[in-house]
Amino acid sequence: MTSQTIISVDAMSGDHGAAVAVPAVAAAAAAAPHLRFLLHGDAAVLEAELSRHPAARAACTVRPAERVIGMEEKPAQALRRGKGSSLWNAVEAVKAGEAAAAVSAGNTGALMAISRLLLRMIGGMERPALVAAWPTMRGASAVLDVGANVDCDARRLVEFAVMGAAYHRAALGSQRPTVGLLNVGSEDEKGHEEVREAHRRLKEARFGFDYHGFVEGTDISLGTVDVVVTDGFTGNVALKTAEGVAKFVGAELRAALTSTLLTKAGAVLASSGLKTMRSKLNPASGAPLLGLRGVVIKAHGGSDAPAFAAAVKLAADLAGKDFVDGLRRDLERLAPAVEEPSRDAVAGGAVERDERDQDSA
Amino acid sequence: MTSQTIISVDAMSGDHGAAVAVPAVAAAAAAAPHLRFLLHGDAAVLEAELSRHPAARAACTVRPAERVIGMEEKPAQALRRGKGSSLWNAVEAVKAGEAAAAVSAGNTGALMAISRLLLRMIGGMERPALVAAWPTMRGASAVLDVGANVDCDARRLVEFAVMGAAYHRAALGSQRPTVGLLNVGSEDEKGHEEVREAHRRLKEARFGFDYHGFVEGTDISLGTVDVVVTDGFTGNVALKTAEGVAKFVGAELRAALTSTLLTKAGAVLASSGLKTMRSKLNPASGAPLLGLRGVVIKAHGGSDAPAFAAAVKLAADLAGKDFVDGLRRDLERLAPAVEEPSRDAVAGGAVERDERDQDSA
Repeated sequence: MTSQTIISVDAMSGDHGAAVAVPAVAAAAAAAPHLRFLLHGDAAVLEAELSRHPAARAACTVRPAERVIGMEEKPAQALRRGKGSSLWNAVEAVKAGEAAAAVSAGNTGALMAISRLLLRMIGGMERPALVAAWPTMRGASAVLDVGANVDCDARRLVEFAVMGAAYHRAALGSQRPTVGLLNVGSEDEKGHEEVREAHRRLKEARFGFDYHGFVEGTDISLGTVDVVVTDGFTGNVALKTAEGVAKFVGAELRAALTSTLLTKAGAVLASSGLKTMRSKLNPASGAPLLGLRGVVIKAHGGSDAPAFAAAVKLAADLAGKDFVDGLRRDLERLAPAVEEPSRDAVAGGAVERDERDQDSA
Repeated sequence: MTSQTIISVDAMSGDHGAAVAVPAVAAAAAAAPHLRFLLHGDAAVLEAELSRHPAARAACTVRPAERVIGMEEKPAQALRRGKGSSLWNAVEAVKAGEAAAAVSAGNTGALMAISRLLLRMIGGMERPALVAAWPTMRGASAVLDVGANVDCDARRLVEFAVMGAAYHRAALGSQRPTVGLLNVGSEDEKGHEEVREAHRRLKEARFGFDYHGFVEGTDISLGTVDVVVTDGFTGNVALKTAEGVAKFVGAELRAALTSTLLTKAGAVLASSGLKTMRSKLNPASGAPLLGLRGVVIKAHGGSDAPAFAAAVKLAADLAGKDFVDGLRRDLERLAPAVEEPSRDAVAGGAVERDERDQDSA
């Protein structure tokens, strides 16, 4: 019993809601018997889904939540009106110490805002970073930020390096990750001021990873480094561009392989190989929100059950590994670089304080 | 004779030099009998290569050039010491009115600096933009800037929209192109200040294209718009990321298709289809340097003869279409937005003036 790990699951959000979340939890429970689950959502819906997975029933506690945050709601709206929703409650259970990690396939902006409000950031951080586990020629690399922080100064990029290395160590298995900074060339004078300054700081500092220097877009899929650091604008574009290219290649491949009777026959014979490739191109793991004082995993909104189950497994992996405390120690070693909180952080802090007051009232 | 078009070719640069450039010119000459060529480079080397292509000999004039600019030379070095090189002379022939367009597979930074010095930019522009012809589900889209302008303000992004639309019209065949601005989401408030401001300006202005609004990374390969506008940092990362993904998919595909005897047999049967796909993924055309007062095409450094020949064809297409004058008129209509030249433009202008003085001395 002492080795139980409790995962808090927003079981109603995402494109498929409970129809995906509950079977995913059942699969995760079967694979890892030490896991227990808090399922947040409409009790009747969840009980109905759970009745189809009797083996998992005992591992699950249903926590009624009165509403679901829509995929289109703005973060500010979600903060104002999200209390009592399945997403809010899933994160709140981590804050209350009832669960070791939270998982949601819901609205990314809402999950980020609510997690930041309830769990708060590790000192010096402003907003969580989103990391992608990117399939490469050599395995998988962590790429961050892929969307949360559009404007990044040098300090933020250095923080991403530290967080990405910690994530790669905990989730992707390296002992001493190599880290590269995404740029348009490899020479010191390439790129804009922020990347050049971050490059100088990373070259001088001694962290628990090896700084490789600048890398370029091609290096991501080649797996040149374990961790690719970039601002949230560039990272988001790179990730979505890669998704688009993979879709395009898939469509071309289907067209090419079914253009003649001969290639069609070939495609049938080759299909098991093609299936292997597709599964590698669609890595099913969720993405942690890095920099929070707690483990929160964002599953893709369109996740199917295996993808959502992988996000649950990632939550359990990070929850069991002293991940947040380690990250906190690493980031606090960067503390001398902290001069003063930016205006955004101050404003965010004020909102957080207001909200926390309401919360505890 | 009146319909002759003369193309000036740097026949020594790139990874393969004359061994690729001369066969490429021969192929282009065979396909388009109205083309004539100035081949710049080592006369003995070029004559030896030409002796293997007797049918093309009459279309070519060899122009001796004493040196070749190395692929690793810095632009400033190339400006100082590049005079008399094959690259320099190729561009100078356009300036002198001897040729309608120049093509080089040489050092991009050197080609850009020398073109800017000799041909000068269209009023208000600072540096040429590099555009990629990106294969999509619906044909090919123009993506720019893919590397020349790392820091871009809103005005620059609007200029890219105008230039990209002109290029798509001239080279990729649309009458009234659709233009999208690359961002991390589609709502007005997404992204950093520069893209939001460019978005406002593009929504209000009336150009010879349809402004679609923000697009995301996935939209590039889907072909959602004909022209994708972004800063040179993001565009370069996106392009190289796509190249990396395509390489990765190719490697995975080879591995997947040759993993068992059955899939291997399938791969053999499917190979013609796969070859079609690969050729579509490696569009062979060169990239024009947009914004110059003349047509300059950058062929990929690693171009093979068909790729270099496609760059020559692109040069001929743009040279024959009133492309530069049209672009100039379009950009001059943006002129009211021009307030004052930035410091970079002033400094660049000074260098250009110095160099022009030396040049004419």
